[in-house]
Amino acid sequence: MNIAIMGATGAVGREMLHQLIEQDIKVDELRLLASKRSAATKIEFKGKELTVEELTHDSFEGMDIVLGAASNPIAKEYAKDIVNAGAVFIDNSSAFRMDKDVPLVVPEINGEDALKHKGIISNPNCSTIITCMAVHAINSISPIKKMIASTYQAVSGAGKQGLDELNNQISDLYNNKDISVSAFPYQIAYNVIPYIGSKSTEDYTTEEMKMENEGRKIMHLPDLKVTCTCVRVPVLRSHSISVSLQCEKPLETDEVRDAISKFDNVVLYDNLDEGIYPMPLITSNQNKVYVGRIRKDRVLDGGISLFCCGDQIRKGAASNAVQIIKCLYK
Amino acid sequence: MNIAIMGATGAVGREMLHQLIEQDIKVDELRLLASKRSAATKIEFKGKELTVEELTHDSFEGMDIVLGAASNPIAKEYAKDIVNAGAVFIDNSSAFRMDKDVPLVVPEINGEDALKHKGIISNPNCSTIITCMAVHAINSISPIKKMIASTYQAVSGAGKQGLDELNNQISDLYNNKDISVSAFPYQIAYNVIPYIGSKSTEDYTTEEMKMENEGRKIMHLPDLKVTCTCVRVPVLRSHSISVSLQCEKPLETDEVRDAISKFDNVVLYDNLDEGIYPMPLITSNQNKVYVGRIRKDRVLDGGISLFCCGDQIRKGAASNAVQIIKCLYK
Repeated sequence: MNIAIMGATGAVGREMLHQLIEQDIKVDELRLLASKRSAATKIEFKGKELTVEELTHDSFEGMDIVLGAASNPIAKEYAKDIVNAGAVFIDNSSAFRMDKDVPLVVPEINGEDALKHKGIISNPNCSTIITCMAVHAINSISPIKKMIASTYQAVSGAGKQGLDELNNQISDLYNNKDISVSAFPYQIAYNVIPYIGSKSTEDYTTEEMKMENEGRKIMHLPDLKVTCTCVRVPVLRSHSISVSLQCEKPLETDEVRDAISKFDNVVLYDNLDEGIYPMPLITSNQNKVYVGRIRKDRVLDGGISLFCCGDQIRKGAASNAVQIIKCLYK
Repeated sequence: MNIAIMGATGAVGREMLHQLIEQDIKVDELRLLASKRSAATKIEFKGKELTVEELTHDSFEGMDIVLGAASNPIAKEYAKDIVNAGAVFIDNSSAFRMDKDVPLVVPEINGEDALKHKGIISNPNCSTIITCMAVHAINSISPIKKMIASTYQAVSGAGKQGLDELNNQISDLYNNKDISVSAFPYQIAYNVIPYIGSKSTEDYTTEEMKMENEGRKIMHLPDLKVTCTCVRVPVLRSHSISVSLQCEKPLETDEVRDAISKFDNVVLYDNLDEGIYPMPLITSNQNKVYVGRIRKDRVLDGGISLFCCGDQIRKGAASNAVQIIKCLYK
């Protein structure tokens, strides 16, 4: 299998490369593509040094899979070239996610949708993947009707730039220097920013609406209603989400814990007496989503509240994308 | 007026002293009380150097008001002595908040309740004060029935210890040293911790249940239902809360914005197009609560979602307590 990574030098692109190894994908040729600025960068893969090539419209000849870790405009510009070259484009941008002909896939939930592709498969939004992984076991007991979510999103959501910005701000503040702000609209060190993406429907943000729109498509719940509040927090890699949800039938916490404990790649991590609950610090640098703080919701009748965390760069992006390759070649 | 501050050397105690000046309270004698360990500390007040005295059962003679900024056990141990000395005890601990004979007061909301005291008045929980300040204007249009809240709580909620712990962890990590953990159950730097207080009803925490129990008492809403998830974040001073609420009648965002803009000591801070939304960085070191991200809730019929921030040490503790003095002497 020949695989290209488009946007190979970013935080998600580099993690995709690690995931090809970790998930044991047999790769004949690996082609690393990036903008002119990053071309010629050397990156190691299975003991060999690969050279990043400049992304052009002719970059995709001979490829079977192109993993996209670039922005929406880049994804749009090159999608046709990828499909025309006969490759399947597994795209982490949001450019095609809501297109009718493009499957939006979380393998543990709707892996079979991947097979319906017409050349492009989209990888969902990071917070949406992590939340859907946490709640889909509940959805399997009884379809979810309503969900209210507040996120605690790591700076890695803005890629390497976001990680650098938090680290630089902490360092500058520690050394009594002026900080600089570019990846986020305001200082993120020692702050939280309740605005991610841009303005969308009725004063929700684009990031907030993804939870409803993409959640509906992934879980096959066209009538799901979601209120989401997306907030950036000064955490490096893992996103956390506080969720209240209501299903068609009332739920008991025991059946919810039981279902979650059996769901692939989800860890039931829930014991207040022993200080066990999900936190970004313990869920980073791994592919599993942790779920805890499971309790009866006091507002939504028969509903459930929970708190979940997962690594945004891994399950929220790179590892999910690489898992999609496996859905295609099962 | 003679005033004592019990727990004068902590973060809240020191802010109470500043608030006596800022709120222009006429003080004849100011007595600063603390544990033996902190006694003899020198603290400046209006240009004079005061010496902190050791707290004893005889500390309250001649006082009109005792502001409590100590723990629950200390509040319980000395409450009778304070009342017997003829002083009014305005207590920031949670020891007496739910007692039938103890008013629980946010002056802008239920200031008149303060006058019904029998010697003790409780200052509410910090997140609860900030949330009630943000939503009470809405409650005045139509009584709130249900509320789902997720908090983003600053380390100052654990006092000077909490502030020191975040600063020390950041510094130790920056210098590649081992960190130490004592004020919080886990590392708080670059982390979020979805557990504050201790375990309470049905796997909610004590901190989470305060939002319902204290919210009911402050806003005179005995049937209010609240689902709250309390989360510590690596922020220094201001708490933030993401809130979804439903009232008896459906609400429009315009009437909500209008009501909030007219409420005392609340700032309507809500314009996505101009990048205006509440953040801890802009709400710290002031007494006002900021409210923004106001939009129609997509799950709760006729409901509203919003995001609010306020300084936990000020309006969430010290400035609210000092305002209560004014309720008594109006």
